[in-house]
Order: sequence, then C-alpha cells, then structure tokens
Amino acid sequence: MKSLRVGLGERSYSIHIAEGILSRIGALCRDLPLKGRCAVVTNPTVAALYLSQVRSSLEKEGYQVTVVEIPDGEEYKNSSTLDMIYDGLISAELDRGSFIVALGGGVVGDMAGFAAATFLRGIPFVQVPTTLLAQVDSSVGGKTGINHRLGKNLIGAFYQPSLVVIDLDTLDSLPEREYLCGVAETLKYGIVLERSLFEYIRESVEDLKRLQKKVLLHVVYEACRIKASVVEKDERESGLRAVLNYGHTIGHAVETLSGYGAVKHGEAVAIGMAQAARLSAMRGYSTSEERDAITGLIGRFGLSLELPDFPLKDYQKIIAHDKKKRDDGVNFIFNRGIGDFVIEKVTDLGSLFSDCRKAA
Amino acid sequence: MKSLRVGLGERSYSIHIAEGILSRIGALCRDLPLKGRCAVVTNPTVAALYLSQVRSSLEKEGYQVTVVEIPDGEEYKNSSTLDMIYDGLISAELDRGSFIVALGGGVVGDMAGFAAATFLRGIPFVQVPTTLLAQVDSSVGGKTGINHRLGKNLIGAFYQPSLVVIDLDTLDSLPEREYLCGVAETLKYGIVLERSLFEYIRESVEDLKRLQKKVLLHVVYEACRIKASVVEKDERESGLRAVLNYGHTIGHAVETLSGYGAVKHGEAVAIGMAQAARLSAMRGYSTSEERDAITGLIGRFGLSLELPDFPLKDYQKIIAHDKKKRDDGVNFIFNRGIGDFVIEKVTDLGSLFSDCRKAA
Repeated sequence: MKSLRVGLGERSYSIHIAEGILSRIGALCRDLPLKGRCAVVTNPTVAALYLSQVRSSLEKEGYQVTVVEIPDGEEYKNSSTLDMIYDGLISAELDRGSFIVALGGGVVGDMAGFAAATFLRGIPFVQVPTTLLAQVDSSVGGKTGINHRLGKNLIGAFYQPSLVVIDLDTLDSLPEREYLCGVAETLKYGIVLERSLFEYIRESVEDLKRLQKKVLLHVVYEACRIKASVVEKDERESGLRAVLNYGHTIGHAVETLSGYGAVKHGEAVAIGMAQAARLSAMRGYSTSEERDAITGLIGRFGLSLELPDFPLKDYQKIIAHDKKKRDDGVNFIFNRGIGDFVIEKVTDLGSLFSDCRKAA
Repeated sequence: MKSLRVGLGERSYSIHIAEGILSRIGALCRDLPLKGRCAVVTNPTVAALYLSQVRSSLEKEGYQVTVVEIPDGEEYKNSSTLDMIYDGLISAELDRGSFIVALGGGVVGDMAGFAAATFLRGIPFVQVPTTLLAQVDSSVGGKTGINHRLGKNLIGAFYQPSLVVIDLDTLDSLPEREYLCGVAETLKYGIVLERSLFEYIRESVEDLKRLQKKVLLHVVYEACRIKASVVEKDERESGLRAVLNYGHTIGHAVETLSGYGAVKHGEAVAIGMAQAARLSAMRGYSTSEERDAITGLIGRFGLSLELPDFPLKDYQKIIAHDKKKRDDGVNFIFNRGIGDFVIEKVTDLGSLFSDCRKAA
C-alpha cells in the first residue's frame, strides 16, 4: 500500500492506494474516525462488481449501511439524479453524524461529493474511485458538482473528501476505452508538471497496457502526488491550478461539439493535449522533438490526435462560452518543453484553431 | 456607521450598519474589491422599494448589473426557485469573476447565498438583509440553503459572504409582525449569551417598538457582534454554535405543526424561548424571577408565549426527526440565569413537553 496526505489545513485527508484494499474500507473509516450511519452511492454496473465487498467491510465495523443506486452515465449527472440521492439520504435518516461513500467513477464521485457538500450543509464523504480517470483526477482537488442543461459542471462546490481509497484491482473490470481515458489524464501531469513521470510512462507503455499493478501503483501514486502539490497551493482554482486544464480547453470543445458520450472526456483531452503540444512548439515554447515525443506517446496508447472536422468558428464559439473564460480572453495552457508550462492569455481564438489545423 | 469584522481566517468579512447606506453599496463593493458583473437577487416586494437605489449605486461604480427576481415567501425556498436563479446567472453570462448581491430577507439571503456557493463551484456574494431577522441572524454565520419537500433547510452549505450591508432604513417598510420576529431573535442573544443586551432591550422596549434608529443601531450591532463571537469559535456548528438554537428546537416543531407561514419563524422562536425559559427554571438552571423576566420581556413585545394546542406526541415526533438530532438524543439549550446557557442531552422528549404544559 502507498499512502499520501493531501495538505489542506483543516481539510487535509489521506489517499490510500493498493490492490485488494476494498475489503479494508470499513477499518479505514473507523480509524479516522467516521461515525454514525453510512450511505454508499454507486451505480448498478459498479454495484454488481464491488458493492458486496464494500458493504460487508463497512458492516463488519458496525456501520449501518444504506445503498443509493443512481443510473450510470454522464447524461444522468443532473439535478434529478441529485434529488434521488437526497431522497435516499433522507429516507435512511442520515444525520450530521453520518457519512457518504462514493463508490464508482467520476460521475458517482462528483454527484455523491456534491450531495455530501450540500446535505445538512455538509457531511463527510469517502471517495472510492473505480476508474483510472477518477483515481488520478477526481480523488484530489475536491471538485464536486452536476451539469446544468446549459453546460457542464456549472453547479458545484469545492468540497474535500475525508478519505480516498483506491483499489487498483477495480481497473481489471474497466472497459479499455475508459482505461485509456485515465491514461490520457495521467500523461498530462508528466507533460506540464514532471518530466520524470512522462519518461516513466514512456518506458512503461506495454506494462500499462496490460495493467501491470506495480507500474500502476507508481503511476497512480505519482499522479495523485503531483496533483496534490498543485491543489495545495491553489485549492480554489484562482491561479496555478489552471495548469491542470492543459488539453482541456480544446478538449472540452471537442467533447461538446461531438455530443456528450460520442467522444469520451479523456479521449477529448488527449486530442486537446496533442493540439496544445503542437501550438506550444509553434510558439517556440518547446522543440519539435518535444512535440513529437508528446504526440508520439499519446498515439502509442491508440488515442486519437486529430481535431474532429467541425467548422473552426464552432470551436471558437464553445470556448468563448467556456466557464473558465473571463471577460478579457481565455487562459490557455502551453507546455514549456516537457515537465513545465506557460499560461498565456489568448484573445484571438480564431488564430488558435487555424494554427491547430495548420500544424496537423 | 458602525462596522464589525467577522474573523474567520481567509473567509473573514465586514458588516457595515447605518441608516441610508444602500446608496453606498457600489462603493463598498469596489473597495473590497469585487470585480466583474453582478447579479442582484431579490423579490418583487423588496425590488419595488429598494432596487433602483441599489442598482444605481452599483452602476455608478461601473458594474454591469442583472436582476433576478424570485417569488416572495418561504414556500418558494426550493429547488425550482434555485433553478430560476441559476438560469438568470447563466443568461447574464456571469463568470467566476462575477458576484451576487442578495437584496431581501432571509429567504432571498439563504437562496442567493446557496446559489453563490454552488454556481461555478462558488462565486462571491454580498448580503443586503432588509428584515430585522435577517440582519441579526442571517448576516453572520454563513448558513445558506433551500428546503426539501421532506423538511426545512435539508439542502445547503456553510458559505460566508464577502460583505454584509445593513441599512436600518429598510426596517421602516417592514410589516410589524416581521419586525417582531427579528426582535425575538435578538432577545435570544441577550438571554443565553449577554445579559447586558437583555437589560438594554428591557430598557428600550418603547424605543424599539417605534424603530428608534439609534437604539436599533446599538441592538443590531450587538446582536451581530455576539453572534460573530460564537460563529468564530465554531463555524460549522459542531459544538458551541448549538447555543444559537435556543428556543429553536421547540420553535421549529411549532412552525412545522402549524404549517409553514401560519406561525412565523420568529414567533415560533419566541414561543420556544418561553418554553425553554420555563424548563430552565424547573430544572434549577435559573430562578423563577429570571424566568419571569424573560417571559415578561417576550410578552411586552406582544409575542405569544404559549405552546399551540397540538397533541404532545406530535411535537415529539417532529423533534425526533429534527436534523439536529443525533442517534442518541436531542441537545437542548437551557438558559443559565440570564446571559449564559447549558446544553443538555435530552433523551426523554415526552417529559420535556409535558413539563412545558405543566409550567404554562
């Protein structure tokens, strides 16, 4: 087991990473200590695989467990599903001394976390991310929320978990596309924050493809550690934390234009990172060798590099409405070489996208 | 003008209290500084009286102002109205650099505050409470939220405003019943936290009844100061802050049984405080003279002292479902003499209410 402390003052918490750790959740909760009743929020897919293990681990420690199942999929990350969760918490008579366990991927984590943030003005919650993307992304940072019909993640809160438990064995049941989405997000930390992680992944492509657990333990731990070091300096995303949007500005536009679900979040981020790598080289922030190393590594995982063929003005329009926008432009993240970054305010979005097309 | 700083670390903020201060809101926001666009959330009743003043003050400072009007009344403090607010914020293209001004009473403040807490994971908001109850209660403490069909304030967040602006002139337009609700809440601080405020109010009953501004300035300032000193020690209501529930455990049950609106919150709290004062004397926490001083002062404002005639078991049932309950009983707040308190865990709710009846 590897463990990591995310240092956020009174909101600090630990992340434990290991194989087969699901059966120890109850004991880890008891150690904190968490008290009272407990609601496990999950979806039917994950429940079929892992709920009985989690439930019996919690019950063995004497917790009274309620299960709230929500439908599986980003399209259900909305206020109706949130209401289902509230109803479950209220029916089970959870009070302020109770807690929530979020067992599932990003959607479950975001929604259960937001429910925890807003039920009785906040009760503790434990993240048990079962996808690689959630393990390396959502487990650090405290972003919780739901989508609004007018845009993604418009409603939410920064709310830290009390504990994160990452069982690498859950990745064995993950569809390959989902797994690669997590790999894309992991690559990000190497590209803009730590070259050593980039190099490690480059040397471990085959091991990662076959889910070699020792390699995964290192990669997941490093990703969480790197993200934690950013979040610790900027919990509420007012500055530095923007670096984590590398690949996401364009990625988000790709995701929106393709229609939610057609291109997955991580796939869209991979495309966004490839564009960012090309733009960084064009602007002289990196060499063409570094650019090729980045796009090459993304490609070796079978992730697409190319901007889907929508009109450039549609891309511009989406980004202009992006919530990260302030009135005076978009903060775009470039990689400086590999392992470092530059944030530059871009006002001419048109040229940004025509540059992407030129560079492809 | 009297000003007060609520000391909550990075979440600290100022409260400014004066007559005629609405016209200075723009300048006070600029001083912070707050930037970007601004959405004023209010209701039609308050808008008719004060919106133009607030709006022009903000516009004079160069803020681009959007107004979101929500229906007036506790029965609209729900997720549908919250959605109306979100829609307004999104249509006006508020981004993370924008802020919300909550202009109105408790319902407007709670909902606009919760919208601010959850829009784009949190944007700043300014409280402009226009009722006495909101001025002495909601302006300190950061409680925001909405009701759920299964109970009051089940959904919410602790979220501090960036600034509170209290214009005593707004009390001139307040219906008398609403005003007296605020007086009841103010009395609470004197009864359980500072005898000097209790005595000051006792000597100022007639001045308070005629809204004498110098007296109001002192009383509102003292109420905010006393509440701030409690909240500073226990921001998230895990201990000491429970003292602020004096009169509220029974009050809440009165409110629920009577049906929302029939008995107002402050009126219910007044009834709850009268019961608490009687129970405190019965248990030897205060003398019968102190009990009579408390019930007498509540009565001098024309507030009712008597528990409405519902079956005792209905009262018990409500309290057993109260969100403040933990599995092992209800923390009940007694006054110790006048100006101090005792928190005692009560498990036998039946005797509590039969004692109320006996004492009446």
